[in-house]
Amino acid sequence: MNLSQLKESVCVANLELVKFGLVTLTWGNAGELTEDGDAFVVKPSGVPYEQITPDDMVLVGLDGKVREGRNRPSSDTPTYVTLFRYFRNAAPQIRGIVHTHSACATAWAQARREIPCFGTTHADQFYGSVPLTRPLSREEVESAYEANTGNVIVEYFERSRRNPTEVPAVLVAGHAPFTWGQTAHDAVKNAVALEAVAQMARDTCMLRSDAPILEEYVLEKHYSRKHGKNAYYGQNEG
Amino acid sequence: MNLSQLKESVCVANLELVKFGLVTLTWGNAGELTEDGDAFVVKPSGVPYEQITPDDMVLVGLDGKVREGRNRPSSDTPTYVTLFRYFRNAAPQIRGIVHTHSACATAWAQARREIPCFGTTHADQFYGSVPLTRPLSREEVESAYEANTGNVIVEYFERSRRNPTEVPAVLVAGHAPFTWGQTAHDAVKNAVALEAVAQMARDTCMLRSDAPILEEYVLEKHYSRKHGKNAYYGQNEG
Amino acid sequence: MNLSQLKESVCVANLELVKFGLVTLTWGNAGELTEDGDAFVVKPSGVPYEQITPDDMVLVGLDGKVREGRNRPSSDTPTYVTLFRYFRNAAPQIRGIVHTHSACATAWAQARREIPCFGTTHADQFYGSVPLTRPLSREEVESAYEANTGNVIVEYFERSRRNPTEVPAVLVAGHAPFTWGQTAHDAVKNAVALEAVAQMARDTCMLRSDAPILEEYVLEKHYSRKHGKNAYYGQNEG
Amino acid sequence: MNLSQLKESVCVANLELVKFGLVTLTWGNAGELTEDGDAFVVKPSGVPYEQITPDDMVLVGLDGKVREGRNRPSSDTPTYVTLFRYFRNAAPQIRGIVHTHSACATAWAQARREIPCFGTTHADQFYGSVPLTRPLSREEVESAYEANTGNVIVEYFERSRRNPTEVPAVLVAGHAPFTWGQTAHDAVKNAVALEAVAQMARDTCMLRSDAPILEEYVLEKHYSRKHGKNAYYGQNEG
Repeated sequence: MNLSQLKESVCVANLELVKFGLVTLTWGNAGELTEDGDAFVVKPSGVPYEQITPDDMVLVGLDGKVREGRNRPSSDTPTYVTLFRYFRNAAPQIRGIVHTHSACATAWAQARREIPCFGTTHADQFYGSVPLTRPLSREEVESAYEANTGNVIVEYFERSRRNPTEVPAVLVAGHAPFTWGQTAHDAVKNAVALEAVAQMARDTCMLRSDAPILEEYVLEKHYSRKHGKNAYYGQNEG
Repeated sequence: MNLSQLKESVCVANLELVKFGLVTLTWGNAGELTEDGDAFVVKPSGVPYEQITPDDMVLVGLDGKVREGRNRPSSDTPTYVTLFRYFRNAAPQIRGIVHTHSACATAWAQARREIPCFGTTHADQFYGSVPLTRPLSREEVESAYEANTGNVIVEYFERSRRNPTEVPAVLVAGHAPFTWGQTAHDAVKNAVALEAVAQMARDTCMLRSDAPILEEYVLEKHYSRKHGKNAYYGQNEG
Repeated sequence: MNLSQLKESVCVANLELVKFGLVTLTWGNAGELTEDGDAFVVKPSGVPYEQITPDDMVLVGLDGKVREGRNRPSSDTPTYVTLFRYFRNAAPQIRGIVHTHSACATAWAQARREIPCFGTTHADQFYGSVPLTRPLSREEVESAYEANTGNVIVEYFERSRRNPTEVPAVLVAGHAPFTWGQTAHDAVKNAVALEAVAQMARDTCMLRSDAPILEEYVLEKHYSRKHGKNAYYGQNEG
Repeated sequence: MNLSQLKESVCVANLELVKFGLVTLTWGNAGELTEDGDAFVVKPSGVPYEQITPDDMVLVGLDGKVREGRNRPSSDTPTYVTLFRYFRNAAPQIRGIVHTHSACATAWAQARREIPCFGTTHADQFYGSVPLTRPLSREEVESAYEANTGNVIVEYFERSRRNPTEVPAVLVAGHAPFTWGQTAHDAVKNAVALEAVAQMARDTCMLRSDAPILEEYVLEKHYSRKHGKNAYYGQNEG
């Protein structure tokens, strides 16, 4: 995929956020690595979705510098840089990132609760709970806020030893979700799944405050039906 | 109805799941028995709804073997096999099945609560509560998961002596709903009704934690207005 | 308005129920009196909204007998008969009735709670709480169910001495709402308002279990801004 | 912008209320000051959105008198007059006002709770909690209700010394929200943001009754990312 095709793909992924009802006003963005993996294409900051075209997309290096584009990139760009640099080593197959303030996932982030795995809908997409980062300190916010938002996400995955490929979503405390995947489009699908799972989990808690977590062996079964070498969901070989 | 017509019908029923807002991404499927009743047509696994055509539908025998089709059938196929084999004896008029992860019905399944019959909307469609299966054991999950998902549904109906024709829906604990009907289209309508009833019941519980179950004589009246030989709802003779 | 125009109006009012999201499947209907007021036009029973045409509408006398139409009228017809006969004396300006199972109003009916007047949105439409009928007795259900559904509504208004013109909606306990107005279209607008008010009241209760009722003098002010001889809302003289 | 262009803009802003799902029936309106700031254009009272054209808009002076227009202006006009007169001195850059009964913001107003700032979605738009006015007294309601609705809003901002530019929304107790901005269109965007924030806050409270307020330093950071001279969100210089 050349740069022009990548801009087209990333533009479409940003528009999918609207199509799937994940964004209000301009509150969300998607980005994806270039083929050589040392830069990424991302939505311009604050531009309404109905106006964006592939040419509006911005190319940013993993050093955080804008390489090409007539617009300023998303204000979340330093978070993308931090995450893409982390994924390059920890999970090189992850090449797409999405950030939204989708309504119910954001409510969990605001309630500062991770989303427990209550059922197979969740287990099909996320191997275990959707994690919550720690809050950023005053120093982290005042110095390099967006980069540090990426850093608390990385910190969570490194400390927990969970695998970002198996858990392609996180809630930043008091903020909102980030999701990722093999492409920006895959990251959008994970953002869709996350919002659906967040809604079901909210209603589950409402119907039963002590709802049980899904049995570990069902989580294992469902996750491995869709992911890994023994997957048998869909039309591709596992 | 010949096989080609059946594939068309089943394809339309799968698209109705999208139209009625019952599915996210590819999380749902519909299937229906062939005229001679020893096989059924079902959605292919993991194919996006916007791409499916009647020719993508898969024909599967009640022995679980694919008879025709270029695609792998839904991963839920062994559940369909188990249920269709059960219905053949217990309720031969049931020839269509639907599985979704519709948001609110799934929340009840995750909360592991049956849906009480709180009102006439429910009574019009389901004769009494919408049941909940027991959870599957580790052995059931690890050996033949999808077939055993069908088995716990069958077990519920056999032990409770409830009639699947009168109760065309079930919640699998920690998983999601299955519904059925005389055709795949009827099963879709029951899935629509189930989701509506699940939402109303959720709000009923929220407004009053000790909300009373509908009086037995009102349940009886409403169910028999729409079903059975004295039905007087709609344009057909009862 | 002649009969043909009335059938057209009633057909449009039934389709508005779909447009405003008040009905699932075939769960709702609208009807309106003829000019001489001794009969009314109503939706046929169980016919999908996408299929109905003005010619499908059924003309029913206030004696409950079908006067004209190739279809069986709504199964709720005896409720319409009872209500129209009551309104003829108590509030002759009411000529349209709507019945839905709109999601949130039905949840209040199932929780068997009247909807308190929590704010001016409610006060603009309904002069005080939206009432709840008593449940029907076994005898009332088993003898003449639909007529008795009308009777418990009439009983409420007669005993409470509330004015059905000022309170154009009621919740039948364990069942669902009925609304009314000067035309079927007005009754639809009241059904829309009722569902909106029911949702706001549900969230109000969720945010504060002891939420206060609107001050009597604000109710008085808001209701009289829109209704009665001193009304000053809209483009018509009060 | 001449008067004709202003009527067009205000008409479009009123239609945006429908597009963004903020209004039911005719429950909402938008208005904006003329260039010389001594009059404003506002929606006519009670006219359905699908019928309004720019020519239906009404020009009203800051003395409350209709200057031009074939229709009666919104019944909320005296509230607009009071607010515009206040903003003229306190925050002259505010030239647009919107009033809706959007579902969830109205529920907070009915529960008589201000909306706490639970997260960055809120902080991006509103500098701190969305305030709640005190209820109007009987005398205030019975004498000049709509003007006094404006007065309790002004009273809140004057007593709290909060800046209406930084907090472009308020909940009137037992009533509903008002929002404002540099134009009617900006006020609509703030109404959209308010409803989204109100929904997230409702779910946050549901998930955790003691959810913490966002750290002051994150509020400060997020608000100043989008507003003021150091803003770096979007494509314009701060």
